[in-house]
Amino acid sequence: MELARTRQQQLTKPAGSLGRLEDIAVQIAGITGHPLPRIARKAVIIMAGDHGVTSESVSAYPPAVTLQMVYNFLQGGAAINTLAHYVGATVIVVDVGVAADISHPDLLSRKVAFGTANMALEPAMTRAQMLEAIQVGIDVFDAQLDRGIDLVATGDMGIGNTTASSAITAALLQTSVALVTGRGTGIDDEQLAHKIQVIEKALARHGPNPQAPLDVLMKVGGLEIAGLVGVIVAAASRRVPVVIDGFISGAAALIAVELNPLIREYLFAGHVSVERGHHLILERLALSPLLDLKLRLGEGTGAVLAISLIEAALHTHCEMATFEEAGVSTREEK
Amino acid sequence: MELARTRQQQLTKPAGSLGRLEDIAVQIAGITGHPLPRIARKAVIIMAGDHGVTSESVSAYPPAVTLQMVYNFLQGGAAINTLAHYVGATVIVVDVGVAADISHPDLLSRKVAFGTANMALEPAMTRAQMLEAIQVGIDVFDAQLDRGIDLVATGDMGIGNTTASSAITAALLQTSVALVTGRGTGIDDEQLAHKIQVIEKALARHGPNPQAPLDVLMKVGGLEIAGLVGVIVAAASRRVPVVIDGFISGAAALIAVELNPLIREYLFAGHVSVERGHHLILERLALSPLLDLKLRLGEGTGAVLAISLIEAALHTHCEMATFEEAGVSTREEK
Repeated sequence: MELARTRQQQLTKPAGSLGRLEDIAVQIAGITGHPLPRIARKAVIIMAGDHGVTSESVSAYPPAVTLQMVYNFLQGGAAINTLAHYVGATVIVVDVGVAADISHPDLLSRKVAFGTANMALEPAMTRAQMLEAIQVGIDVFDAQLDRGIDLVATGDMGIGNTTASSAITAALLQTSVALVTGRGTGIDDEQLAHKIQVIEKALARHGPNPQAPLDVLMKVGGLEIAGLVGVIVAAASRRVPVVIDGFISGAAALIAVELNPLIREYLFAGHVSVERGHHLILERLALSPLLDLKLRLGEGTGAVLAISLIEAALHTHCEMATFEEAGVSTREEK
Repeated sequence: MELARTRQQQLTKPAGSLGRLEDIAVQIAGITGHPLPRIARKAVIIMAGDHGVTSESVSAYPPAVTLQMVYNFLQGGAAINTLAHYVGATVIVVDVGVAADISHPDLLSRKVAFGTANMALEPAMTRAQMLEAIQVGIDVFDAQLDRGIDLVATGDMGIGNTTASSAITAALLQTSVALVTGRGTGIDDEQLAHKIQVIEKALARHGPNPQAPLDVLMKVGGLEIAGLVGVIVAAASRRVPVVIDGFISGAAALIAVELNPLIREYLFAGHVSVERGHHLILERLALSPLLDLKLRLGEGTGAVLAISLIEAALHTHCEMATFEEAGVSTREEK
């Protein structure tokens, strides 16, 4: 990081004038241990899973959409496909808990269960299921690492997963459910009030321990969220920068950082979502989002958009001329 | 725009979930008249010019840096070169008023004068010089249009040009100079107080008419700012989207929109600069910046960074599958 900071002072620009681009380059130098870090291969890992709590009518879309969107990812028709193609990132789709049989040559089939249990009635996962889903994330990341990966973005698909993420956020931040519960894919006022009630009851029933992030994850989380926790933990431990997407990825990052605060240093917040509660997660993590484009789609879209800014930052850091190389006067010569 | 809006409703995502990416696609559809607009060729036009007011010690860097940085642009070593290379934009460097002879095969030599006059003593330009500099911008843009251009970004180089931009902004927004004057390339408190005084005296001496943007431009502006006014006016009139950079480009955009309010519809604010006064320009123009990365470099850096977001927006708009194509349920089927 020191070497990277020194280089930033020598590049042909007023000191500090590239703002957060400079910070990004220095942070990635620290994460990777390279003063001139490069990003060659990057991927977005999309964890897909269903949620038993959709039986409680918490979402604007039917649960079958999880499966349909997984096929859409695999056929290249979703927003994340077009954005990943634009920045040159590989899209990795993982079935960690979709409530239907899926078969596709490009799908990573690591199904732990056919969706979570309905948190309104019982804990979303057993401890064994949760740990297995985290292990899926670790395994999937490690397989990418073996192929060579310089940056990973997190993505999610799961009808009902804003409900799980709001429950996690309320439990870990110890805030009111209403403060961290939004409209997800687009529910109305009445449905929102109902969604909040469902979450409040689930939290009251299971009483997850706010000091024990895995207890919270198990009782009110999701299989795809657990998978993302695994991806984040694995990437950080292997010194690979992680770009976090919106609210669901944010809930996974919150759990990962509560498990080990050092993980925070390996994270970039790709964007801040419209979904209520996301900015509170970012505040807790002390991460400043790179983008604020009023997105609320998930899939990794905001994270992948931010990859272009991170790559641009490294381009300036590695490719710009120094004052000496370019024969440009520094302010001291004035 | 209507056709583009309808398409956005049919793509496989909750309505509105791509936030500002959707708005960008619809706006470019309107600008270009194509419901599925594409960006093939894009360029950043950097207007370079010197400022007589640098005799008043308003800048942290010596005026010779303008010339040195022009060579740096032409040799590919500046921040804008690395960023433009990253997004695939051509860098066009125009000498509209550098205070030295320059010769380089890739430079567009359209020098109107060897820098402006010192606004502390006399008007920065004659009316003829200002009009000629605007014409340079029009000509340079039109030459790019002849080669085919789908998007243009504005950039600037000119030691002393935050002084001119602050003077323009104070005059046109009729605000106090202190409110719109910042540290430019990095002056200290004492130098900042002096810079504000110099601008206040120049405005008092020349009394530019706030209802006449060209009167303001002539008396306290700059040759490169006039050139950018020409680029913006020309691009808008030819239905080509313009991505505005920071404070200096913003001052040019302010003048262009004061001349013709319709031009606003053709503009994207690439970012909001750290330089004081820029956010006030954006407020007046009712433009919301795409990025806020604490940049204060100019050269077109913030605008070119934003190109990747605009291109990504068009990728989603043009390439995503519709609900029908992908066999995904809409919320109405619930």
